[in-house]
Amino acid sequence: METIIRSATQTVVISRDRPLVIIGERINPTGRKKLAAALEQGNLKLIQEEASKQVKEGAHVLDINVGVPGIDEARVLKEAIQVVRQVTQVPLCIDSALPKALEAGLAAYEGKALVNSVNGEERKLKEVLPLVKQYGAAVIGLTMDDAGIPTKAERRLQIAEAILNAAQKVGIPAEDLVIDPLAMTISTDHKTAMETFKSLRLIRDKLGLNQTLGVSNISFGLPERHPINGAFLALAAMNGLTCPIVDPTIWEMRRAALITDLLLGKDEYCMNLISVFREKFPSPR
Amino acid sequence: METIIRSATQTVVISRDRPLVIIGERINPTGRKKLAAALEQGNLKLIQEEASKQVKEGAHVLDINVGVPGIDEARVLKEAIQVVRQVTQVPLCIDSALPKALEAGLAAYEGKALVNSVNGEERKLKEVLPLVKQYGAAVIGLTMDDAGIPTKAERRLQIAEAILNAAQKVGIPAEDLVIDPLAMTISTDHKTAMETFKSLRLIRDKLGLNQTLGVSNISFGLPERHPINGAFLALAAMNGLTCPIVDPTIWEMRRAALITDLLLGKDEYCMNLISVFREKFPSPR
Repeated sequence: METIIRSATQTVVISRDRPLVIIGERINPTGRKKLAAALEQGNLKLIQEEASKQVKEGAHVLDINVGVPGIDEARVLKEAIQVVRQVTQVPLCIDSALPKALEAGLAAYEGKALVNSVNGEERKLKEVLPLVKQYGAAVIGLTMDDAGIPTKAERRLQIAEAILNAAQKVGIPAEDLVIDPLAMTISTDHKTAMETFKSLRLIRDKLGLNQTLGVSNISFGLPERHPINGAFLALAAMNGLTCPIVDPTIWEMRRAALITDLLLGKDEYCMNLISVFREKFPSPR
Repeated sequence: METIIRSATQTVVISRDRPLVIIGERINPTGRKKLAAALEQGNLKLIQEEASKQVKEGAHVLDINVGVPGIDEARVLKEAIQVVRQVTQVPLCIDSALPKALEAGLAAYEGKALVNSVNGEERKLKEVLPLVKQYGAAVIGLTMDDAGIPTKAERRLQIAEAILNAAQKVGIPAEDLVIDPLAMTISTDHKTAMETFKSLRLIRDKLGLNQTLGVSNISFGLPERHPINGAFLALAAMNGLTCPIVDPTIWEMRRAALITDLLLGKDEYCMNLISVFREKFPSPR
């Protein structure tokens, strides 16, 4: 299955048969004080810098979230999309908890965006899916619903199916739904990564959908977070992850994605790994 | 299936249901000039140091190979086993291409050793399996035969089956056979890791045997070898690798094994990872 997203000039294809598509996560004020403060002051310069930096470090898509309490999120999201467009043409992932902000973002976006996100909650499905359909976008569906986040993979598959059914009912084709089966924190449940891998496999094998994950959640509270996140990325990719949400400006993460593609047979002659490595470390290391 | 190996005082159990068993690879003169020179001069001090160092860094088993052209390998292997015993009690993997040296090593070994290795060649099977049976050891079987190393996983499975049949014919039980489905170099064939993963899966699912790999072969000739080897280790473990042969004195590799166990649900409360990390980096990092 191919999920295609676009800007006015660039197309990105998400598919199991292709290398991983990297969605850059840094334009998001959650846990980023400096960015939150800049947004409160109406300063979008930092967003522009983060956009350029992530694309330079290999992001194929940029997530744009400007959710700070007290700001006019719809207006700021629209402005953020515009300023990001001044520095890069990569397709965007329009990210908000507020349907109004999503709509403003979609109206301001030229191309086919990815929307972040819907989930299995009745209200969310009703609010978000018609917007996705109206603007011809693709959408991320989180496997949680009114009962919360299920522990078991089988239940996450059921929610993914329910989101798929709801999407198809409003006319969104299966290929425009990307499932996020959710990465939880392994320090509080040592079986949680295995359950996420199983969810990925089930959703890949039963529904054939593309899948994303916010990779770094897994290592919260642990030492050696980047190596844990990198190994989790590789294992998740083997089980069906096709478009991880990561911080590509962390070399360990960008490298993990390149190495994952290499080991999964998607980097002929190791050209991607070697060319990125040479560009990044031009002198012998 | 549980493969059990022993020294006089320590037992190691290799099983899919347990954390990875690390076989330390450093006592091997291949590609190690200093060790080769020391062996030629009859100096076994370096072997003792390598043994201590690897066990300190988490090796559960030590591979002992003293194959240098021109030395009396049977005698030196026996002596090497004796000097290693002065510094550590971990079980050993007795490694030689010469049946005479294997026999001398097995005769000098107290406990149940792992023998490295037999393969599908007629001559090898005839020379090595009776020794393994006679000394009640376990043995590594490489998936190659008189026709060489097969590219395809299905053929590697066939060779593993042939080795298993030959072992059982001389009275060696299935649990005492550990298959090495062979890691090749990905820079010359970008699909080779995928073929190794498939071999691991087939041999795990059809024969249920424990499996080892010389992990570092995969990255020969590439930049960023340790991260590649670490990701390969994790992916291989997910597919059936239970006792990798690695250099645990390289922190990236030891860490990769710990992280693999963690993500595969074998490190409750993350205790192994955290305790090794605290021991290794006592001050805040």
